[in-house]
Amino acid sequence: MVDSFSKLPGIGQSTASRLALYLMGKPSDLTLEIAKSLVEARKKVKTCNICNNFIFDEECSCQNKSRKDEVLCIVENSLDVISIENSGEYEGQYHVLQGLLSISQGIKPGDLKISQLIRRIKEKKFKEIILATDPTSDGEFTAQFIYEKIKDLCPLITRIAIGVPIGSEVNYIDKNTLAKSLIDRRKIG
Amino acid sequence: MVDSFSKLPGIGQSTASRLALYLMGKPSDLTLEIAKSLVEARKKVKTCNICNNFIFDEECSCQNKSRKDEVLCIVENSLDVISIENSGEYEGQYHVLQGLLSISQGIKPGDLKISQLIRRIKEKKFKEIILATDPTSDGEFTAQFIYEKIKDLCPLITRIAIGVPIGSEVNYIDKNTLAKSLIDRRKIG
Repeated sequence: MVDSFSKLPGIGQSTASRLALYLMGKPSDLTLEIAKSLVEARKKVKTCNICNNFIFDEECSCQNKSRKDEVLCIVENSLDVISIENSGEYEGQYHVLQGLLSISQGIKPGDLKISQLIRRIKEKKFKEIILATDPTSDGEFTAQFIYEKIKDLCPLITRIAIGVPIGSEVNYIDKNTLAKSLIDRRKIG
Repeated sequence: MVDSFSKLPGIGQSTASRLALYLMGKPSDLTLEIAKSLVEARKKVKTCNICNNFIFDEECSCQNKSRKDEVLCIVENSLDVISIENSGEYEGQYHVLQGLLSISQGIKPGDLKISQLIRRIKEKKFKEIILATDPTSDGEFTAQFIYEKIKDLCPLITRIAIGVPIGSEVNYIDKNTLAKSLIDRRKIG
């Protein structure tokens, strides 16, 4: 049980032991219930062959007619979709890469089904594509790679703003972010 | 001694006690040396009547002819000047407010010598003015207040980019910053 829990991200040996001991102290029904619900949930979830997001319902939310269909936002994973939805500033379509290109981890364009994304962009003729991968080295590399592939397929390709976060102080932020926020300064008025 | 140390920002009773005990355990020369250097340094430092920054040398760095003089960057304090210098992305002039307007703390335009700043802008005719106050509520309020006062005095007024900081993840950033980074997204290419 400890070995199994340890296979999950962010759960080390000691947390795994704590979880296992907890279950040992409870009736075995609880363990059975948790194990069953994990297997069932995992069985139900599919990946949408259009937007590459996980589908929990019958139909993927990318088929929701009330969403705008002329803008596409490309993100790393489903958590990013949830975060962007919570921000309340986006009503368009998503494409989930289910990962980032990574030289260090050996993740290549084929692993992220980039050709499926390009086919979608060619077919749908979006008015704008937003590259919303993380401002990390893998995220920037992925954004740049995709930009090169799609630059002739869409009239407007944008990147989320990178800069000093709201509530932070200029003299506490790392110097690379401060440099970027000076380079990317915006005209007011 | 504990009371005196406690008057400094970020030093509470327990840190103050620790510092005081440290000095008690050393020869009294050390205490004398520290006290003397504080008084002397404080005596030497003046405020530049042009850029409002502290002057540690004979001449303020705002009089350094090697710096560009057509851009002005408005910041809260001298630490911000140091941070922006360390970012390596700015070679222009600074104006130090020595604080931010604050309704909660009762800091008004007169306290920040805003009229002195406006006089400087009228005289120098800068090509660009960068508002680099923090993206906090006081910082945004101050930037907006100054913008309204100077908008007809300079052809280009900019604000440092606010967004997701370098190295961070889209699904970990607060939703206000994520919303702002979507609103302020930048065209690529």
